[in-house]
Amino acid sequence: MILIDGKAIAEQIKQEIAEEVRQIKLKGYKIPHLAAILVGNDGGSLSYVTHKVKDCEEIGFKSTLLHFEDNISQNFLLNEIDKLNNNPDVDGFIVQLPLPKHIDEQTIINAIQPSKDVDGFHPVNVGKMVLGLPAFISATPLGIVELLKRYRIPTQGKHIVILGRSNIVGRPLSILLSQKGIDGTVTVAHSKTTNLKELCLQADILVAAMGQPGFVTADMVKHGSVVIDVGTTRVPSTETKSGWKLVGDVQFDEVAPKCSYITPVPGGVGPMTRIGLLKNTLQAAKSRS
Amino acid sequence: MILIDGKAIAEQIKQEIAEEVRQIKLKGYKIPHLAAILVGNDGGSLSYVTHKVKDCEEIGFKSTLLHFEDNISQNFLLNEIDKLNNNPDVDGFIVQLPLPKHIDEQTIINAIQPSKDVDGFHPVNVGKMVLGLPAFISATPLGIVELLKRYRIPTQGKHIVILGRSNIVGRPLSILLSQKGIDGTVTVAHSKTTNLKELCLQADILVAAMGQPGFVTADMVKHGSVVIDVGTTRVPSTETKSGWKLVGDVQFDEVAPKCSYITPVPGGVGPMTRIGLLKNTLQAAKSRS
Repeated sequence: MILIDGKAIAEQIKQEIAEEVRQIKLKGYKIPHLAAILVGNDGGSLSYVTHKVKDCEEIGFKSTLLHFEDNISQNFLLNEIDKLNNNPDVDGFIVQLPLPKHIDEQTIINAIQPSKDVDGFHPVNVGKMVLGLPAFISATPLGIVELLKRYRIPTQGKHIVILGRSNIVGRPLSILLSQKGIDGTVTVAHSKTTNLKELCLQADILVAAMGQPGFVTADMVKHGSVVIDVGTTRVPSTETKSGWKLVGDVQFDEVAPKCSYITPVPGGVGPMTRIGLLKNTLQAAKSRS
Repeated sequence: MILIDGKAIAEQIKQEIAEEVRQIKLKGYKIPHLAAILVGNDGGSLSYVTHKVKDCEEIGFKSTLLHFEDNISQNFLLNEIDKLNNNPDVDGFIVQLPLPKHIDEQTIINAIQPSKDVDGFHPVNVGKMVLGLPAFISATPLGIVELLKRYRIPTQGKHIVILGRSNIVGRPLSILLSQKGIDGTVTVAHSKTTNLKELCLQADILVAAMGQPGFVTADMVKHGSVVIDVGTTRVPSTETKSGWKLVGDVQFDEVAPKCSYITPVPGGVGPMTRIGLLKNTLQAAKSRS
C-alpha cells in the first residue's frame, strides 16, 4: 500500500509555480495578481482566505484581500466585483463562499468575468470543461487529477466509482476522469443509489466525496484498488490543541491495508485544493500577458 | 416488451406546443420566432433544416431560414449571428452543423447569445445544465429524458449505462439522468472501456449512443431492461425508395425480446430530436415576453 502524500505533491507544485514566477520577474513581465473577497467573519472562511493569501505570498504572487462586513448589500458586492473585472492589474479573483443569506451566490458567481474566474465556478468555465475546451477547473477535481497523474496511477479503461454528485467535486470530477486522455469508465453514485456496496466493490478507483465521516468501510473496497478520500468533516477532538480534527469519508485504518494507493485525511486531497487556485491564477496571468 | 413510440410522443408534444401557441395568439402576445442559418448545400443538412422549418409552421411558430453559399467568410457569418442576436423579433436561432472547414464551429457557437441558443450548444447553457440551473438543453438528451418520463419508466436508483461520451448526446445525457429528481446511477462507457459486456449486463437502462450500427447484441442486455437506441447511421438499402435506410446501434430483432421497453430505429429517439428545438424556442419566447 502506497500512501499518497498530497502535502508533498502540493509543496512540489508550489515550488514549480514559484520558479515560473521567478522567470516572469526576471523577464520583467507582470507578476500574477490574485484578489479575494471575504464577506463577514466566519472563522472557517477567514482561515481559508488567509491561507490562500499566504500561499500567494510564498510563491511570489501579488495578492489583495478585500474584507467586508456581513451586512453589505448584494449591489455593493456586485459593484466590487465589477471593479475587479475591470481592474487590469488583477488577473484573477475569488469570492469566498458561503455568503450571507441575503446575497444570492449564483448571482455573484455569474457576475465574475469568466476569464478572471480562477475558482472555476462560473457556468461558462463549467461548460467549457464539459466540452473539453480550455477552462478554469475548480480546485478539488483539478487537484485529484493531478495526484493521479503525479503518482502515475493508470486510469484508461479503469472503472472509477465516485460517491457524491456535488457541483464542486463529484460532478466535475466525473466529467474530467472520463474525458479523452484520462479515459476512465466513470460511475457517479449518490444518496439514491441502491446497489452501493456492489458498485464500490467493482471500483478500480474509488472516490469518496459525500461528506459522511467514515462511510466507506473495508467490505466496500476491492483488494488492490485506489481510494481517494475527499471528505473533510471537522469533528470535536480532545487529541488536538484546536479542539477539533478533520475526518475523511473513509475508515482509513481498515480500508488502507486493502488498497494499492490511498489518500490520508488530513494530508491527502486537502493540500491539493489550495494548489488549483494558484495554477489557475498563473494561467490567467499568462493568457493576459 | 413495450415498443417506445417516439413518433407518437413527438406528435403529442407538438400538439401541446401548438395549443400553447394558440393561447399566445389569443392573448395577443408575440408569436415565437425561430431562425435557422444554413451554410452550403449538403443534402443531409438541407433536409434537417427544412424539417425544422416545417415543424415550426405546423405548430404556428414564425420561422426564418437564412441560406448562404459555402464560400462565405467566418466574419460574414459572425456578422449575421450578431444581427440575429440583436433582432428583438427573433426569440431563438440555430446554426446548422457541420459548417465548411474554413469556419471554426466553436467560434460560431460561442458567438450566439446564450439566451437565444435554442440548440443548447453554448458553453453557458452546458454549464448551467451541469449546475442544475435553468438552461437550454440540447435536443437529443432532452428528448430521451422526455421519453422516459412519458412512459413513466422508473429511473431513481436505477443503474443507467450510457455507451458513448459525445458532447451532444452521451455526456449531457449522463449529467441529466444523474441529477436530483431523476436520480439514476449513471455510468459512461466508451471506446476505452474494458469490461463493456459485463457493464452492459448490469444496466437497468442501457443507452446506445456511439454510432456503431448493430453494436449492442442480445448477450449484452439484461432480461427486463430498458434499451434506448440513439444510433442513426445511414446505410445503403435496396428496400427503400431513397436507396438508404437508418440503422440503430442495437441489434433490434434479437435484443427486443429481452427488454421491458425498447426504442426502435427509426421512430424512437429520432422524432424526439426535432421536439427539443421547438420546446426551447417556446421557452425562449416566453422568457422574453
